[in-house]
Amino acid sequence: MKILPDTSFFLSLLTFGVEEYFVISPSFTRLAADVEIQFCPPDKLKPKPAVKDLVFGKTFTEHMLEIQWVDGEGWHKPQISPFHNLSMHPAAKSLHYSVQFEGMKAYRGVDGKIRLFRPDENMKRMNRTAERASLPTFDGEELIELIKKLIRIDQEWVPHSESSSLYVRPTLISNEDALKVEQPSKALLFVILSPTGPYFSTGFNAVSLLADPQYVRSWPGGCGHTKMGANYGPTLMIQKEAMKKGLQQVLWLYGPDHRLTEVGAMNIMIVLKKKNGGIELVTPPLDGLILPGVTRLSILEIVRSWPEYEVTERDITMAEVVEASKEDRLLEIFGAGTAVVVCPVGEIHYMDKVIKVPTMQQEKPLYKKVYNAILDIQYGRNQHPWAVPID
Amino acid sequence: MKILPDTSFFLSLLTFGVEEYFVISPSFTRLAADVEIQFCPPDKLKPKPAVKDLVFGKTFTEHMLEIQWVDGEGWHKPQISPFHNLSMHPAAKSLHYSVQFEGMKAYRGVDGKIRLFRPDENMKRMNRTAERASLPTFDGEELIELIKKLIRIDQEWVPHSESSSLYVRPTLISNEDALKVEQPSKALLFVILSPTGPYFSTGFNAVSLLADPQYVRSWPGGCGHTKMGANYGPTLMIQKEAMKKGLQQVLWLYGPDHRLTEVGAMNIMIVLKKKNGGIELVTPPLDGLILPGVTRLSILEIVRSWPEYEVTERDITMAEVVEASKEDRLLEIFGAGTAVVVCPVGEIHYMDKVIKVPTMQQEKPLYKKVYNAILDIQYGRNQHPWAVPID
Repeated sequence: MKILPDTSFFLSLLTFGVEEYFVISPSFTRLAADVEIQFCPPDKLKPKPAVKDLVFGKTFTEHMLEIQWVDGEGWHKPQISPFHNLSMHPAAKSLHYSVQFEGMKAYRGVDGKIRLFRPDENMKRMNRTAERASLPTFDGEELIELIKKLIRIDQEWVPHSESSSLYVRPTLISNEDALKVEQPSKALLFVILSPTGPYFSTGFNAVSLLADPQYVRSWPGGCGHTKMGANYGPTLMIQKEAMKKGLQQVLWLYGPDHRLTEVGAMNIMIVLKKKNGGIELVTPPLDGLILPGVTRLSILEIVRSWPEYEVTERDITMAEVVEASKEDRLLEIFGAGTAVVVCPVGEIHYMDKVIKVPTMQQEKPLYKKVYNAILDIQYGRNQHPWAVPID
Repeated sequence: MKILPDTSFFLSLLTFGVEEYFVISPSFTRLAADVEIQFCPPDKLKPKPAVKDLVFGKTFTEHMLEIQWVDGEGWHKPQISPFHNLSMHPAAKSLHYSVQFEGMKAYRGVDGKIRLFRPDENMKRMNRTAERASLPTFDGEELIELIKKLIRIDQEWVPHSESSSLYVRPTLISNEDALKVEQPSKALLFVILSPTGPYFSTGFNAVSLLADPQYVRSWPGGCGHTKMGANYGPTLMIQKEAMKKGLQQVLWLYGPDHRLTEVGAMNIMIVLKKKNGGIELVTPPLDGLILPGVTRLSILEIVRSWPEYEVTERDITMAEVVEASKEDRLLEIFGAGTAVVVCPVGEIHYMDKVIKVPTMQQEKPLYKKVYNAILDIQYGRNQHPWAVPID
């Protein structure tokens, strides 16, 4: 892992071959190789829960990864050690201001191999977010190596199931013990692992959405395109509003024309029959309001290879959705994200209207086709460069 | 401290005399009285640093206050104990998503008494923020009592200086060990104390501001009117941009007409000579984009009592500031907040223009008059109901 105090500067170096630079500080060049590992004693190993009992983000494995960063010193040696509480100074900056995280998964394939799905994309996004959050950036390839080491140690926690997986949560916080709202001079990167069961154990269920234009998730000039905690904490209250109305998720709108932006903590995908008869998959463009989801990217790349669909990244307003619905041209809406892959939408509650979305009524719905295509890659049924084996 | 699972419901009860309700759960009615105190052993007491050596938010006192909340159980017994690190599960929600905090101060007056400044206003705002952050609300009066107890124990940490003070940081986090983005079922309220030196030990210094409309702090439908960490973390990068240009703070603009909203983490005050000759103090209205600062409120109330000024809460755009500057009608701009009381502005760097603000050139500037009026109250030179003695 290399210290990158100013990413833009170093990115420019990287294009010209940066190796010379790092000869000056060789201690940063082989961080993954420098990892110190302390194993959990055998008598402390925990029984692995049954897949059916797994609740998202509640169960954790036996080991965790930590890497401390200190301004002027850079990244310290990575430590893999038995899972433990963090000892946090109460003034730790991230208990007051800024945090960021990533979400990715490891899958046990049909061949028994464990694979990560496009981890390079998560690393790119995590570094972009670190920069926006004023936290230190790092070498993503090194962190992938460290995550692989951690998963290898806890490999028995990767469920033996083709619908379950091991959720990987890299997190970057500042543990500097100073209250002033300013650049953190200390940061801690840690990675924890949580086995997670199938979202759709009894088949897909369509969710109902609350679309209330008075609540706005993200705005131009903000940080809605990053995976900062700042984008998630403020959504909890609106999620509660939706649940009070018996709905499951929030459909986030933006602007006077009520553009669709995201759904819950997922990207949104809309399948329309075009007026000329073709079928269009629409998703909002990466204009700064939208999280650049790895599942979103993968769906776009996969569907673009299927000639029967036109794929467009463009703004889509509630007026267009309402019109398409009236003209029976609204075919499907689904969320897309790492946790669920896809999540079909059944209805939208918007300004005293209920828009029925016939996602579940399609004979050969797109959401199922992309779900199967992605799972085939994740679980090794389709050997594909996006699925990176752990060993 | 009372459990208030749904504030709006309980607020409606409160107007009709809520005491009957709380008879049902008497364990919540006397939380401040129930505090458990564990004193720091005498040999662990630390020497108090010299006021001149104090850096904001770096030095902490010997004790801290903690109150755990658990969904269904409510607020547990408060604990005051020697200052210690928090043992945080790595999945603690607030290390990933949502945090909130408050900032207030205790002052040692000219009569030796220690006073808090309008703590009821901080408690109101903290409860409003808790609700927006989906964290539990509480009885503000009880928390004030607990904070008084804590300060009494650490009273020797309140600087013996009329320009220094003890910064009080109540913080509300979720320490629930679950990663799902949903209502937290556990929360921890803690209070830490940090003695802080004078901001203007060598007299006032005017700051220079970066006003770059491409960065937006807060937006309608968001949470910019609350004291959530989500409003602060994303500002660090822009603050760094300002400092790279040799400027000290960010002037936050909003909208196509570049309305002034806040400065750094302070409210903004603009003093204009009106076209008809009168003097107007302008500050942006509490429209959801603006933090309702206690210092802001106090300045408005004080200056409204001075007949020579017209006080207006209204939108003010950069175009109006530029025009007033050209016509020599821009008299002063200053920030207002708990940390500094007031912070005079000397210039604004805006779209390749530098607008000079003659704040420091006024003969009898308003910022100094309000500074003195507020310090007179905080340090007990003017006996005033806003200053609440600790005992």
